[in-house]
Amino acid sequence: MVRQERAVRTRQAVLVAAAEVFDQVGYDAASISDILTQSGVTKGALYFHFPSKKDLAQGVLDAQVDALPAVPARELKLQQSMDEAMLMAHLLQKETGDPIVSGSVRLTVDQGSSKDGLDRRVPMQRWLDHTQGLFEEAKQAGEILPHIDVEAITKLTVGAFTGVQVLSNIMTGREDMPERVVDLYQNLMAVIAAPAVLARLQFDVGRGAEVFEEVVRLRDEKAELASP
Amino acid sequence: MVRQERAVRTRQAVLVAAAEVFDQVGYDAASISDILTQSGVTKGALYFHFPSKKDLAQGVLDAQVDALPAVPARELKLQQSMDEAMLMAHLLQKETGDPIVSGSVRLTVDQGSSKDGLDRRVPMQRWLDHTQGLFEEAKQAGEILPHIDVEAITKLTVGAFTGVQVLSNIMTGREDMPERVVDLYQNLMAVIAAPAVLARLQFDVGRGAEVFEEVVRLRDEKAELASP
Repeated sequence: MVRQERAVRTRQAVLVAAAEVFDQVGYDAASISDILTQSGVTKGALYFHFPSKKDLAQGVLDAQVDALPAVPARELKLQQSMDEAMLMAHLLQKETGDPIVSGSVRLTVDQGSSKDGLDRRVPMQRWLDHTQGLFEEAKQAGEILPHIDVEAITKLTVGAFTGVQVLSNIMTGREDMPERVVDLYQNLMAVIAAPAVLARLQFDVGRGAEVFEEVVRLRDEKAELASP
Repeated sequence: MVRQERAVRTRQAVLVAAAEVFDQVGYDAASISDILTQSGVTKGALYFHFPSKKDLAQGVLDAQVDALPAVPARELKLQQSMDEAMLMAHLLQKETGDPIVSGSVRLTVDQGSSKDGLDRRVPMQRWLDHTQGLFEEAKQAGEILPHIDVEAITKLTVGAFTGVQVLSNIMTGREDMPERVVDLYQNLMAVIAAPAVLARLQFDVGRGAEVFEEVVRLRDEKAELASP
């Protein structure tokens, strides 16, 4: 059991180091030896978990969605989806960032080549499935207007979030991400949400930081309960 | 005069070749010798126009907006902005693509590193300025609702377009780009356009291809008039 825990921690340390290196220099320019140095684990341990650079990058891609701490269930599913996006934006910013989130987003968005063998669809498909699930619940609950095509609006939401993040990164180093994401959701919700729901949604620019504090507090409380 | 024309053509051939190579493998993996082979020009001619790989990439980035043939003025400025986006989507697709457009978009979206010295803001700032200009005209003409913040909606439009393009590329190799762009504009216009204008906007999925045929026809007619 202790050995298993240690293996999980080693694997996580390698993933974080790999994400940091991929975030800094991209897939092509990254080297396993840089990741090894950054991780502080032994060569044997790194290769045990990830036999190649491709495995390291696919590991970082696959870890993207789970790297986001779970946002507690909200009464309004549209608020929940928006809170997740605001949390993601918060975790993509330089000072408050999570290396797995930013490294993995870079690997997803950088176009790469068919030869690199990375499957960038993994994180995108998971975001699409997760978002569509929330939007379907929202539609059943009457939060989303009846004529809205949930699948199309899901693709629009995930695609547009990806792009406002790219634009914010190019123009401001992600400094204006919270504003850009709030703008996106305000306009999107104005089209899809029932009027009474729209009036109840919270669109503050500081919401990503607040949600982050909330999930960290909940995680700490849970850890305290679990400790002997 | 003839010499000047030849120089312009050589420069263009090098730019197209560079865009093709950057589109295929990205900035890091591209080599000047690949670009030289692809261009078919002499080494001296290539270095005369672009002394380094960085100059080649910046040249491709700077040429992005002008690579789009001008869409003739439309009565509705919102239609014009949408037609430009649909044309751009058409030129990003594999079979109907323009190498400068797709190579340059890849260089813009790929994150790169601060060390590569490329200024990815150049094409983004030009798209922002151009789009904001059209939206301001649209607002003055009463096409856009009075409460809409033109600057914010411009950033949203340019950012969201960038992202639906990235998502479409990852999930379908850009096959579903026309649908994704129509979805984006239908929802965006539902929020910003005056109702009477909204009813007149054309959102067909085939519009990018139609606009492309139109601009090519106009260009050919112009060339015919100019020839002796």
